Amino acid sequence: MEEFELIRKIIPTYYRQPSVVKGVGDDAFVFRSSEDIVFTTDTMVEEVHFSRKTMDTHAVGYRALAANVSDLAAMGSRPAFYSVSLVLTPDWTDEEILALYDGMEQLAEKHSMDLVGGDTVSGSQTVVAITAHGYLPPDKGRYRSDAEDGDVIFVTGTLGDSRGGLEELMNPGESVSGHLIARHRYPEPKAEFAAGLTSLSRLCLNDISDGIASEANEIATASGVRLHLQKEKVPVSEELRNRYPDQAGEWALSGGEDFELLGTVAPGEKEALLEKARELDIRLTFIGTVSASDLPEVLLHSPQGTETLQPTGYTHLKERRKRL
Amino acid sequence: MEEFELIRKIIPTYYRQPSVVKGVGDDAFVFRSSEDIVFTTDTMVEEVHFSRKTMDTHAVGYRALAANVSDLAAMGSRPAFYSVSLVLTPDWTDEEILALYDGMEQLAEKHSMDLVGGDTVSGSQTVVAITAHGYLPPDKGRYRSDAEDGDVIFVTGTLGDSRGGLEELMNPGESVSGHLIARHRYPEPKAEFAAGLTSLSRLCLNDISDGIASEANEIATASGVRLHLQKEKVPVSEELRNRYPDQAGEWALSGGEDFELLGTVAPGEKEALLEKARELDIRLTFIGTVSASDLPEVLLHSPQGTETLQPTGYTHLKERRKRL
Repeated sequence: MEEFELIRKIIPTYYRQPSVVKGVGDDAFVFRSSEDIVFTTDTMVEEVHFSRKTMDTHAVGYRALAANVSDLAAMGSRPAFYSVSLVLTPDWTDEEILALYDGMEQLAEKHSMDLVGGDTVSGSQTVVAITAHGYLPPDKGRYRSDAEDGDVIFVTGTLGDSRGGLEELMNPGESVSGHLIARHRYPEPKAEFAAGLTSLSRLCLNDISDGIASEANEIATASGVRLHLQKEKVPVSEELRNRYPDQAGEWALSGGEDFELLGTVAPGEKEALLEKARELDIRLTFIGTVSASDLPEVLLHSPQGTETLQPTGYTHLKERRKRL
Repeated sequence: MEEFELIRKIIPTYYRQPSVVKGVGDDAFVFRSSEDIVFTTDTMVEEVHFSRKTMDTHAVGYRALAANVSDLAAMGSRPAFYSVSLVLTPDWTDEEILALYDGMEQLAEKHSMDLVGGDTVSGSQTVVAITAHGYLPPDKGRYRSDAEDGDVIFVTGTLGDSRGGLEELMNPGESVSGHLIARHRYPEPKAEFAAGLTSLSRLCLNDISDGIASEANEIATASGVRLHLQKEKVPVSEELRNRYPDQAGEWALSGGEDFELLGTVAPGEKEALLEKARELDIRLTFIGTVSASDLPEVLLHSPQGTETLQPTGYTHLKERRKRL
């Protein structure tokens, strides 16, 4: 396909967000906001963060954008825009490129997001770098530093499924779990849920990209508190437990890339949280409590005793990323 | 250097922009704006868009950010934030990484910009992807589509110097021109100038990244007008003309990466434009006029006659980029 024809197929013909002032096609994109603006960025390198051997490019695009939407959710914001910088190797076909954008569009449509910029250049290794913007009512940012003594800890969805799905893809057996593979390829970031909690006076949120062991430690450190997690309450899907009984527990803690939310709220706001989860048909589980501490740490309690949960993350097929 | 120590050296300890709500260190960055927001992104691949053989990493960083600042300038906006996604090969030293950020910081400081995000990952080819934000008073965006019949055409600075500097670096002779090399490595995007023209009722602007042949054609197409350029008025530095008498004229038209501004204004606002240029000690040259036309095109007039100027760009060492 001629390259400008390819670009014409990708450029949006209308914008879902009414805040667009000047869309794609000038030196830069222009928008207007009466709310706070949230901005995040995420870079994925082929054979480091994803593989076309286990993921078609539609899923690569969807998942790359999902990582950004999950970060926007973790700030409590409503997703609005995304921009895509691609470095493509010569072996990419037109169909693979269009499928990559279609994968992003599938998620973008669900969250009313617009594609507002980016560029495509050639290189010797594929890189997908996405940036995204969201909107936030003033002073409703949901930060890692907002956990307080007495808060209850919650998590959305089930954990470890994405790691299980990766296992299915990398070491296929006689049967495969479509559920786990779908959770790996097409995770559902909880942006609508997070943005719908503006009535809560205070909420601490972090998204689960590296596993809750890592994310819980980030909250403990940022808030200067101790988190107590009840191991048996950490939600694991029946599918994961059935197929990987020996690994399910560990993957639930450190599997990563589930793109669910981990958070803490005041006990008095539990009910409002549950109400929103019911409304959106989202599984919500209370898995622990927060206590004051001079030493920020995460304790994992189980019938076998209590241990300190180290911030070990998801390292399989994924090099740890250094983020600003 | 231990990686977290490296990151500590890069993360800003304060923010120059008062609009920062939540700085680096959570799932995303948050800011607040009473003005319109301009957003741009630019990806550079090693050995495609830059080479560490001819540029130290300080200059690579400076120039990568300069390309973004130039896009912000071309919209008439004041630069505010930037974010850096890096894919680094294993041979990068700590010193090279810090120099890259120092190079960006040198330009950022001049424009009161803050580093507000990004990530660093490993790969087999170096990629520097920068995104940047600027602020714009409502309805003061300066678009390519704003040229009108009767406008005068102007350009800042001198053209072709960056291309000359590249030649000095790639084919070093017995002497080198420090001036041309500096113009290639450390171009000066005209953001302060562009943002200082808010009193003008209408202004068409485009930045010169691919050479004015290309940029003038973009204006002609976007505005649906004919641009008449006077060849002998296109500003060329004495240094470029002396060292490259045979190529200077061509490089001035299609050299690219000068990061100057090409624009059109109503004749009645020429004086206000000149006044701002004088105030900031910027060279400003009027090089032609705009006329109505059913056929968008650029005509180049010279004593030898008139020719249609095709949108040929800068292709040496740089693959054409497909931008949204």
